[in-house]
Amino acid sequence: MAWQPALEDTRFLLIDVLQAPGQLAPAVGSEMADASLWTQVLEEAGRFVAEQVAPLQAVGDSPGCRWEDGEVITPPGFREAYQAFWQAGWPALACAAEDGGQGLPWVLEGVLYEWLAGANHGWTMAPGLLHGAYECLRHHGSDELKSRYLGKIANGEWLATMCLTEPHAGSDLGLVRTRALPQADGSWRVSGSKIFISGGEHDLTDNIVHLVLARLPDAPAGPKGLSLLLVPKLLPDGRRNGVHCDRIEEKMGLHGSPTCAMRFEGATGWLVGEPHRGLGAMFVMMNAARVHVALQGVGLLDAAGQLARAYASEREQMRVPGPRDAARAADPIAGHPAVRRILDTQAAWVDGMRLLAYQTGLELDIAKHHPDAHRREEAALWCSLVTPVLKAACTAQAFHGASDCLQVFGGHGYTRDWGIEQIVRDSRVTMIYEGTNEIQAIDLLVRKCLPDGGAGVGRLFARLADDLPAGRDAAAGHEDMVRAALRDLVAATEHLAQAQRDDAEAPFWVAGDHLQACALVLLAWAWCRIGRHPGAQGPRWQAPAQAFWRWVWPEVGMRLGLLRASTS
Amino acid sequence: MAWQPALEDTRFLLIDVLQAPGQLAPAVGSEMADASLWTQVLEEAGRFVAEQVAPLQAVGDSPGCRWEDGEVITPPGFREAYQAFWQAGWPALACAAEDGGQGLPWVLEGVLYEWLAGANHGWTMAPGLLHGAYECLRHHGSDELKSRYLGKIANGEWLATMCLTEPHAGSDLGLVRTRALPQADGSWRVSGSKIFISGGEHDLTDNIVHLVLARLPDAPAGPKGLSLLLVPKLLPDGRRNGVHCDRIEEKMGLHGSPTCAMRFEGATGWLVGEPHRGLGAMFVMMNAARVHVALQGVGLLDAAGQLARAYASEREQMRVPGPRDAARAADPIAGHPAVRRILDTQAAWVDGMRLLAYQTGLELDIAKHHPDAHRREEAALWCSLVTPVLKAACTAQAFHGASDCLQVFGGHGYTRDWGIEQIVRDSRVTMIYEGTNEIQAIDLLVRKCLPDGGAGVGRLFARLADDLPAGRDAAAGHEDMVRAALRDLVAATEHLAQAQRDDAEAPFWVAGDHLQACALVLLAWAWCRIGRHPGAQGPRWQAPAQAFWRWVWPEVGMRLGLLRASTS
Repeated sequence: MAWQPALEDTRFLLIDVLQAPGQLAPAVGSEMADASLWTQVLEEAGRFVAEQVAPLQAVGDSPGCRWEDGEVITPPGFREAYQAFWQAGWPALACAAEDGGQGLPWVLEGVLYEWLAGANHGWTMAPGLLHGAYECLRHHGSDELKSRYLGKIANGEWLATMCLTEPHAGSDLGLVRTRALPQADGSWRVSGSKIFISGGEHDLTDNIVHLVLARLPDAPAGPKGLSLLLVPKLLPDGRRNGVHCDRIEEKMGLHGSPTCAMRFEGATGWLVGEPHRGLGAMFVMMNAARVHVALQGVGLLDAAGQLARAYASEREQMRVPGPRDAARAADPIAGHPAVRRILDTQAAWVDGMRLLAYQTGLELDIAKHHPDAHRREEAALWCSLVTPVLKAACTAQAFHGASDCLQVFGGHGYTRDWGIEQIVRDSRVTMIYEGTNEIQAIDLLVRKCLPDGGAGVGRLFARLADDLPAGRDAAAGHEDMVRAALRDLVAATEHLAQAQRDDAEAPFWVAGDHLQACALVLLAWAWCRIGRHPGAQGPRWQAPAQAFWRWVWPEVGMRLGLLRASTS
Repeated sequence: MAWQPALEDTRFLLIDVLQAPGQLAPAVGSEMADASLWTQVLEEAGRFVAEQVAPLQAVGDSPGCRWEDGEVITPPGFREAYQAFWQAGWPALACAAEDGGQGLPWVLEGVLYEWLAGANHGWTMAPGLLHGAYECLRHHGSDELKSRYLGKIANGEWLATMCLTEPHAGSDLGLVRTRALPQADGSWRVSGSKIFISGGEHDLTDNIVHLVLARLPDAPAGPKGLSLLLVPKLLPDGRRNGVHCDRIEEKMGLHGSPTCAMRFEGATGWLVGEPHRGLGAMFVMMNAARVHVALQGVGLLDAAGQLARAYASEREQMRVPGPRDAARAADPIAGHPAVRRILDTQAAWVDGMRLLAYQTGLELDIAKHHPDAHRREEAALWCSLVTPVLKAACTAQAFHGASDCLQVFGGHGYTRDWGIEQIVRDSRVTMIYEGTNEIQAIDLLVRKCLPDGGAGVGRLFARLADDLPAGRDAAAGHEDMVRAALRDLVAATEHLAQAQRDDAEAPFWVAGDHLQACALVLLAWAWCRIGRHPGAQGPRWQAPAQAFWRWVWPEVGMRLGLLRASTS
């Protein structure tokens, strides 16, 4: 079955339910906050992804990328699709006009990448890394560096990487050993080994721009001694720089994206930002990058659901329980409750998480550009707290939900023929990269919620609760329930802040439960939002709504219980 | 890290906690129920698996099996290991003495296969299929057929397959179309296509004995019209039979086991059992086969845990919370709560499920051989109800727990270097084959628990509750809690039996929750059993016990809530 862009659903959630143009207009101006412009962009995006990128999904998995004498050969068709992609202007969709971009809101870039990841996660890794490099260089690069590199990164003519990890330094970047020595001309000579570099070498573009974390000679130990350097594959004079790809990893999946072991041997580079302030420069784009990964999760789960729904409506096995057509030997498995529950549950996650991720996309722009300082602050709080929740919850559900979708295929799902097992394998890495999901949970609870005793999360949840009408309508039962859960979760967070004073370990044990509880209340809030829109009354939205309240929501009680037990 | 047999743990659970020799002596005689004989067998088994089979794990994944012109070439070393396996007498461990077996209790065969699956799931598929074929032929084969085939299947000189599935008939065997036509000499000519035939063709043994579900010319439609035929690869006179392997499936994992598409073209076969009674003949070995799969799950999860524990004790990243050695830059990740929770939780499942699966192994022998009819009946009830629970719960936890163990490795876990992602991929199929986990849940609830209004499950759970002392000791809190949950689950089952009268679909929606609730109360019972043994007081058993009560057990409340909500 060919992958389809969720154009109608996205339009409904973004424009009808969230009324995103109205929310964004004060921040980005009414010209860029225009529903019909957005619809046109999304239609074009959907067409491009479906026609150019989705057909390369299988070939991305096998043969995948090959390493040969330091070069990486991407699968047939990848380079052509990428060249078409950047020449059509897609990378620069949300880049500033002064950098050659179209200046559209971030959320449209988010939707584009959600669709790309669903259609072909491996291919999408390459352009996916551009955006962080663009933000980083835009905010921290010198004028000279920007004049040489920013435009070609913005428009995607050159691709970029983030070179952080070393064999002994994964989650703990403080252990990084790569060094940079100053040269007379103001450049630096960079030497060291990096691993897990997505797109470290490939044939999609002529040049590749690496952003490398390294230590200067006078650097203090630990994470505060790291600097960021820009190291191109080809030097400005056209010569090869001292940058080598020693191998690509054999992985569980994502074979369309080369994961490179890179060796920098006295490579020429230039400092980006201040010495020893490299981590700060990289963290500029942390929230946006994590929302990108969350949207990969949403896209992958949607793609898995598309495959499973199509299969379930064709495949006939056994009779459904209850009233049925006596003339048939077997019914489509889509009619079996066990299968319907799987399909509707994934839809409940996809729809709800879409709403939340799109709202987060809006908040990213509002935090930067809204004229009202209070609204900017509110938006910054939303991004700070909701981003780790979405990154972890969307990627975990992508993997587990794709595995549930595989189950719909029975033994056929375990073969490569149907494409579903590829999604299970490909999606698994999203739980690890851009900060493991465990680190997201610690970031949320220990770094962000506990230091102020739960005040910040209390403010965010009060905003969510205010948005739920206390009315007596049909949905009010849910809304009262969600309001109570928001209160309980804030209380549990406050208790953890107290418990931490006696037992520093206490919150670390339950950080994952806390994040999952946050995900569930956010999702519940999203379903309240969707549920009260008049356009959500048909079976398209009622089936996942019911699945959410019936099958997904009850977990919140268990998570709250685990949080309470940890402080009692 | 090299795989290790869990010799000490198994001995403790089987002999000290379950006192299995005492339980079995009345059924199998004291000579075969001898703890020191068992220990000796298990030591030998552990050595064989570790030395001969475990080293072939990586080569089983890659290159894996290859198909070439109808032949299947297994990975280097597979044939030699298999030849050593059968010549050492391992397949016949639990076969009857009159068939050339050693007549040892089933549970020892169970442990052997648990270890084999943990060490090398792919290789283990080949001999794993012998045991069902042996039981089937032993109980239903004619004397002539037995004299030709039973001995060589019992001792494993020839391997066997089960040919059930067809492209359009997976879970629904009633749709099978393969046909058998009678011949003058009493044989049958079998024609049709079968898929997903594990070990349908290979080079491990000279002959392969296929047990094929087919329809005779006068067969009624549906599952009651299926007959079972024995179709060998080589005919008694040495000629090739009309049995062809057209391809092997490209799969997500389990590349060490060839999954064959088989074509029978007028192949000569002989009826096993009565015409049209083929399903009954196959179901003889259903419980044992499903406990085998449950033990694969246990073995795979144990193997994943071994890898993750070894990695976590070596890998140093970031500081642990709380008091710590100031001189270090980073601590072993095994000290981080998020990692400890993952490791201890998997151990809680492995230990508890081992106890339950071993007790089920004992009940299989007790149901057949115990002199007391009431005890036999009790054992049959245990096997009938506990088997689907173990099959589904152990395999689901194998996959999800192995994925959690992969997470411990961070990005390294996603590469092929550490062997953990292979276990995730390999284990996924156990949730599908031998009856999907959804079908196990329906089998348990709809076929077994509801028809008698919950009486059977009430009897089984009363037996479990009787086994829990009502004392005032430290563990009594858990035991009272488990007793209450056993009662609640019986009550919920009774309500479902009533609800089904008005709504035939109702139990199908929550069959999975019901099975998982059963798994959790059984696991809790197992941990009560382990917890009150004096040998379980050290950290080896206390850490997983605490993880069980703290992290695993709370799910039971959520599942019971889902069951209650479905009937309210």
